[in-house]
This record gives sequence, structure tokens and C-alpha cells, in this order.
Amino acid sequence: MIFEKVLSTINKYNLIENGDKIVLGLSGGPDSVCLLHILYRLKEKLDIEVYAAHLNHQIRGIEAQKDALYITQLCENLGVTSFVKSIDVPKYCKENGLSVEEGARKLRYEMFEEIKQKTKSNKIAIGHNLNDQAETILMRIMRGTGLQGLRGIEYIRDNNIIRPILDIDRKDIEAYCEEYELNPRIDHTNLETIYTRNKIRLELIPYMKDNFNPNVIESIVRMSNSLKTDSDYIQEESEIKFKEVSNLQEDACEIDIQKYSKLHDAIKVRVLRKGIKHILGDTNFVDQKHIEDIMQLEDNKKIDKMITLPRGIFAYRRKNTILLINKEIVNETIEFCYNLPSNGFIKVKELNLVLETQTMNIDRYKSMKLDKKSKGFDFDKVKGGIVVRSRKEGDKIKLSAGSKKIKDLFIDLKIPREERCNVPIIVDEQGILCVGDYKNSENYKIDNSTKEVLKITFKKI
Amino acid sequence: MIFEKVLSTINKYNLIENGDKIVLGLSGGPDSVCLLHILYRLKEKLDIEVYAAHLNHQIRGIEAQKDALYITQLCENLGVTSFVKSIDVPKYCKENGLSVEEGARKLRYEMFEEIKQKTKSNKIAIGHNLNDQAETILMRIMRGTGLQGLRGIEYIRDNNIIRPILDIDRKDIEAYCEEYELNPRIDHTNLETIYTRNKIRLELIPYMKDNFNPNVIESIVRMSNSLKTDSDYIQEESEIKFKEVSNLQEDACEIDIQKYSKLHDAIKVRVLRKGIKHILGDTNFVDQKHIEDIMQLEDNKKIDKMITLPRGIFAYRRKNTILLINKEIVNETIEFCYNLPSNGFIKVKELNLVLETQTMNIDRYKSMKLDKKSKGFDFDKVKGGIVVRSRKEGDKIKLSAGSKKIKDLFIDLKIPREERCNVPIIVDEQGILCVGDYKNSENYKIDNSTKEVLKITFKKI
Repeated sequence: MIFEKVLSTINKYNLIENGDKIVLGLSGGPDSVCLLHILYRLKEKLDIEVYAAHLNHQIRGIEAQKDALYITQLCENLGVTSFVKSIDVPKYCKENGLSVEEGARKLRYEMFEEIKQKTKSNKIAIGHNLNDQAETILMRIMRGTGLQGLRGIEYIRDNNIIRPILDIDRKDIEAYCEEYELNPRIDHTNLETIYTRNKIRLELIPYMKDNFNPNVIESIVRMSNSLKTDSDYIQEESEIKFKEVSNLQEDACEIDIQKYSKLHDAIKVRVLRKGIKHILGDTNFVDQKHIEDIMQLEDNKKIDKMITLPRGIFAYRRKNTILLINKEIVNETIEFCYNLPSNGFIKVKELNLVLETQTMNIDRYKSMKLDKKSKGFDFDKVKGGIVVRSRKEGDKIKLSAGSKKIKDLFIDLKIPREERCNVPIIVDEQGILCVGDYKNSENYKIDNSTKEVLKITFKKI
Repeated sequence: MIFEKVLSTINKYNLIENGDKIVLGLSGGPDSVCLLHILYRLKEKLDIEVYAAHLNHQIRGIEAQKDALYITQLCENLGVTSFVKSIDVPKYCKENGLSVEEGARKLRYEMFEEIKQKTKSNKIAIGHNLNDQAETILMRIMRGTGLQGLRGIEYIRDNNIIRPILDIDRKDIEAYCEEYELNPRIDHTNLETIYTRNKIRLELIPYMKDNFNPNVIESIVRMSNSLKTDSDYIQEESEIKFKEVSNLQEDACEIDIQKYSKLHDAIKVRVLRKGIKHILGDTNFVDQKHIEDIMQLEDNKKIDKMITLPRGIFAYRRKNTILLINKEIVNETIEFCYNLPSNGFIKVKELNLVLETQTMNIDRYKSMKLDKKSKGFDFDKVKGGIVVRSRKEGDKIKLSAGSKKIKDLFIDLKIPREERCNVPIIVDEQGILCVGDYKNSENYKIDNSTKEVLKITFKKI
């Protein structure tokens, strides 16, 4: 009965294919022992190979050695190759500043990977059962979760970690072990959140069974499985939309406001998460609240506003986009300062920019065809050496309306915050001639008395 | 604080608009009393009118009269018009075969509707709170539910039933009543599932708070609110797809297999539910299992297969469609039987069909241009009176390959089950001349010896 049920789970979720080589995580407890035995029985039918991997945590002393002995013998009886690795988990955790739960998990998966490579296997099988699933989901519901979290434990993850007995009730697993006289060890190696999980297992679920629904575990898992389908659908749609609205750079994600604003909120939330995931690799520590804050940036009143997010990410509303970006890049202010000859050129390597300068009389200047990238100044008004440099706190420029802070000018010109240090400022010893090719100072303006002109050309290379 | 929070809920979900006239369900307990007071305070700000409606269930005798008195006085003090209706709920339930919960709910909403009409109101306000919400969701999780059920209680339903204090914690409501000295009655009128709900309220949630998360109520409600967005999205997409793939008749819904098969499972499930809802008005008693059974019909191996669903619905796989149909229509076998003159016509009103008959010599017959709707028989082979009738159990026809059951012929011809009683069978006293215009008998075939021909024409009217 449970054998057929496992086979049906394997088929339904396509967990195993012919020719698979599978590393099984074998603690020695009923779950993993039952799974080992079922995979052993399926070996020929599915044309698979099975290896067992056991980690001795060195937490339980003599009992741990008995576990290892039991596993070696069991595998020998079944003709399954087994690997036993012994690591001082508590010591490792102390040294690496990890909780025992985190450390053991990390070491266990490292061992699986190691044995997977050694045996040229392609899959890892884990013995989670139906009760583990219900417990996980209940725990998440109590702590707060969303559609993604309600999926619970996955039948298959990253196309290589599989859980074939996830539909099987713990008591059926124990009965199976008894029927086949497998004599599993009492499973003490489940280190994760022992307190919480035991409370759920031994108190909460029995209470729910007695008072509300004897089949509460099945109800919860059925709910989770139906939500998996819904979650898959929204994920797939979000992925499609994400590609449509986003423009990806290495450490940034630009989202087209016009396209984005047409999406449903359910999709918007996921598009933003995908943008952050693109930069960080995951979205840990990014809460629903942060996502809602980014969503506020859609309002056109928020143009030019910025919000700070966890882990050095920030979201910046430009006119036509929301820019998600690794904040550190922005903070890396570009600074440069070069003397500029009055006839010649200089390369500003920080900006991939060449500045060409030329002095000439006014008649020649007037006869020239000038493009927007060239600016003319009354050369007689220039005092001392000319310098091109990055902006400085307090920079001001004289405009027709009066003196203006560069910072305010940038805001007027809607130059994004992170681009402002990319604007070259050209100065003499009195003050600013021009702010890039955006704006010239009134103080150096060509007028009727101008005889000699300084022409500066901005060339991107 | 709670006043502002209610206002924010009202704005967020657009519960109240200027000029609304609202009937408030007032039990006299803290929830509805608090809601009354808040709506009273919002009267001018929102330009609304409020009426209070109270149902005396006649279950608690003298206490119920005190409730009514309390309500009348409270409303008088606030200048709110109140309506008190007294109904013997237990008697009503007994007479109508309803549980007290169902009956009280039905009567309460009937009363709301009545007062809504009397006062020309457009909304009904109900005093459900945050705890009710969390309890409802937990109850559903334990009993089994899906994305739709996890939405919990709606802030607004059918655009007229509103729940403005659904975000407010019960203890804040009690504190509010105390602050304004409203002295609410102890609420005994919440008749629904008292046992289950009290267990959840008084045992389960406190246990969860103590052992897992002191903010478990907020976590559950936050989860539900985020799932509402996801659920809305899938519902909207399903509605669009449903329109694309379905062809609706009064008691039936035809689903185009080619379009349907391209949909995601999450959408398929909902499209099928919408089809059933179109026929029945709701999908009560239709489980996930039934929907999965219908989904199996997508497989082309299932062409011509039928499955029976609850409440007289059945699903039938035709070549290019899945037909959902009210089964009773199909079972209403159409029976008819008319004598057919050899020269003349007869109307089969059950089929909106006219049969024209004509006898003529073979030469004339051969000279005629015949369309597919006309059939010729050797008139000399016909014995006794001719009859047109609906099919009967055991009907057989002689074909070139031998005798064949009409039932098997229908299967061969892929005539849908529900159309089979619409096919006229023409017989003489020996047997069947033809099965509609589908197939003629070998026994009456025109051959070289034929002199006189009976021509029958089928005309749809």
C-alpha cells in the first residue's frame, strides 16, 4: 500500500527517471530507513542506483556510534553502498558562529554534495514525511507567511533534491519498518527547531485531531498541494511579466513604470522581489512592508524620491522607471580633477570622456558650425588655470536669475542622484564656467565686447 | 487610535462612500456597539445615515428583552433610528428543517434586507473583528480549504455588506466600549458553531500565543490579506479565460477542449467551477475531487465518456468540448410516436421536425434531384402502417454487415448521449426503415426489382 503510494508520488512529480543515481540521506530513523528500503525495492523497476550517506554529528557519543554501526549493517544486508562521515558539529558551529541547526544542515548538505560527486550521482533523496509537511505548514502559518510559504516542503527542489515519502503518514512508515523488520533507530538527529516541532507534533496536532478534525494533517497537506498549483501559476506569470517590464544590469534592475503600472498587485509584488533577487541572489530580510514601500513609488508624485531597503539595496523613482540598485555602487563617489590646457585635449578616464579645448577670435568662432556638445566662453573673462573636476559640496553657478547651488540645478534638470558625480565641472580660479554640457555660467558669457573665445567640446569615448 | 484604524480600513477597501445609508446589525455585544458608536461619530465626516437593526431570537427569554431595551436606549441616546424584530427562531428552524445557526443567519439577513428597503439604505454593516477573522481562517485550515477559503471574512461582499472593524482586535474594542461607557451586553447571540469557535478562541489561540507567537492573530490575518490579492488576481484571470473557452446555454456550459488544454491547471480548476456555477448558481458540494475527475476528461482517450457529479450535474466529453450539463434535462427522455401517411406530411413537435412522404414510380424517382435530407425506400418492401417514433430499448437495424443495435450505431456515429432521443426512428410493422437521416436499413433498399419508391424528407422547422 505505502509502496504503491510512494511510486505514485514519484510519478506524479516526476521525482525519479530511469538511470538516476541517488544519494540518500540516511539518519537511521524510521523515515530514512523506510525510504532506503523502498528505493532498494524500486532499483530494478526504475533502473536506478542508490547510495546511503550518514553524518555522525558527534553529539550523542556512544549512541551515535551505534547509529553508524546499524546503518553499515543495514546497507550491507541490502547491498547498498554506504558512506559514514564523522564531524564534530558542535565544534564546527562554535568556530563558524552558527546555530547547531544551521551548522548541521550546512554540513549535511555539503556531505551530500561530496558523495554525489564521488559517486557521480545526480539526485539527493530526503526522508521527510506527511507529518513533517503538516508541521512545517502549521509552523509557518503561526509565524506568518504567504502563498510561497504555504507550499511547505517541496517534493522536488532545484531538480535534484527529492522527497519521495512526503505523502506518507508517519505511523504508516513505522508500520512498514516493523513489517520488514528494519528495526530503525530512534531518530534523535533531527536537530532543527526541536522544541517548536515537538510541541507541534506532540501537543498541537493531537489537540486539533481530538477537537476539530481527526484528518487535520491530510486537510492541511491537501490545502498546501492545491496552493502549490496556484503559486506555480502566479510565479510563471510573474516571470513572463518581469521579463517584459525589466531591464537588467549587473547590480541593478530598471523597471519600466508604464508597463509595470498596468500589472495586478499580485504580480507587482513578485516583479519587485525578482528585481531584488536579481541583485542579491535571494530576498532574505526583505519583508512585505519593504515591497509595499517600493510600490508607493509608482505614484508620479514620488518622481526623484528614493527609499532605502535592507542589505544595501535602494529603490529610486526616476521619471519613467523604478531603479533597484545596489546602494554601495552609488556611494562610491567618483572623484577626479585635471588641469585643462587652453588649446589641446584631456581625457577624463573616470567618465570615458575627452575634453577638447581651442581658443580663437570671435569672428572665426561665429563662422563655425557648432553642435550641442561644444560650448563657447569669453576667454578674457577666464582667470588663471582651467580645471575639470567632479562636483563638490557647496558648488554654485551664476545663472541669469542669480547664483544657484549645483545640487538644486541637478534637481531642476532631473539628473538622477547616482549620475550626478558623472557630470564634469569646469572651473577657473574664480568659479564655475559650466556644469557639464548642461549649463553655462553667466559670468563667462560671450557678448558684444568678446574678442577671444574659449571653445570646449565634450566627447564621449 | 482604533477610530483612525477603522477609518483607514474604510478608505483602503472603499467600504463607505459619501451619501451612503447604512443598516447596522446590532446584537448589543461589544463589537456591534463599538461599530455603532464609530459610525455615529463618522456620520457628518462621511455624510452617511445609520440605522440599527436588532433581532430578538427569543432564545434567552428575559435576557433577550434586556438586550432589546439596552439597544433602544443606546440608539435613542445617539439619535440613531433603531428597529427591533422579535422572531421565534427555534420554532422557525424546526418548521423549516434548518439548524439554529442556519435559521438565525437566514432570518437575520432577511431582516437586514427588509430594513434596508424600508429605510432606502444601500449598505449593511456587520461587526466582525480581527479575532473573528483569525478564528475563521484557523477553522478553515483545520477542516480543509483552498486559496478562496483562506481569504477568510471579506471586508466588503457583493458591494453592499461591509465589515469596518475587521482589522480591530477584540480587546481594543472592549477598551473602546469602556472608554465611551457604552456598557455593551454580553454577546450571546453569536449562534454560529459556538462550540468550535469557543474552543478556537479560548483554547487554541491562547495556546498558540503562549507557545509559538504572541502575535499569531496578526500573522494569520496578514497572511490572509496577502492571499486575497493573489486570489483576486487568479480570479480575474480565470474570468477572462472562462469567457474565452466557454459557450454558455441556459442549463449547460460547453468548454472548447483546444483552448482549455492550453490553460494552467490553476486556471482550469476555476474555469470548471465557473461552468458549474453557471448552471447551479454556486458550487456547493462540488469538491476538489470532482473537479479533478472532470479534468481527466481532457485526455482524448476519454472522448464520449461521461461522469456524474453532485446535484444532478454531469460532465460529458465530446470530440472538441467538455459539456457540463444539468443531468435532469438529459434524463427527461423525449418520447413520441406518430403515424406517417404514405403521401403527405407530419409534424414531430417534440423535435421541431416535419417529415414529408411521397410515393412515386422508380423512373420519376431516378429523375429527381435528391438532397441529403431525402431518403428513398422500396415501397413494395414496406409492410403495414408507417410510424415515426423515438428510440426504444433493444432497437435494431439491418445493415450490410448484419443486424446492429441502434445504441451501438449511435456510439459509432458519435452522437452525444443527450441527443440520441432526438433522432426519429421510422418503422413499419416488420422493423426499422431508417434511423433519422443517418442510416437506412438494407431491408428496404432500392434495387433492380424496385418499382414503387417511398420518399421521406426530413425538414427542420
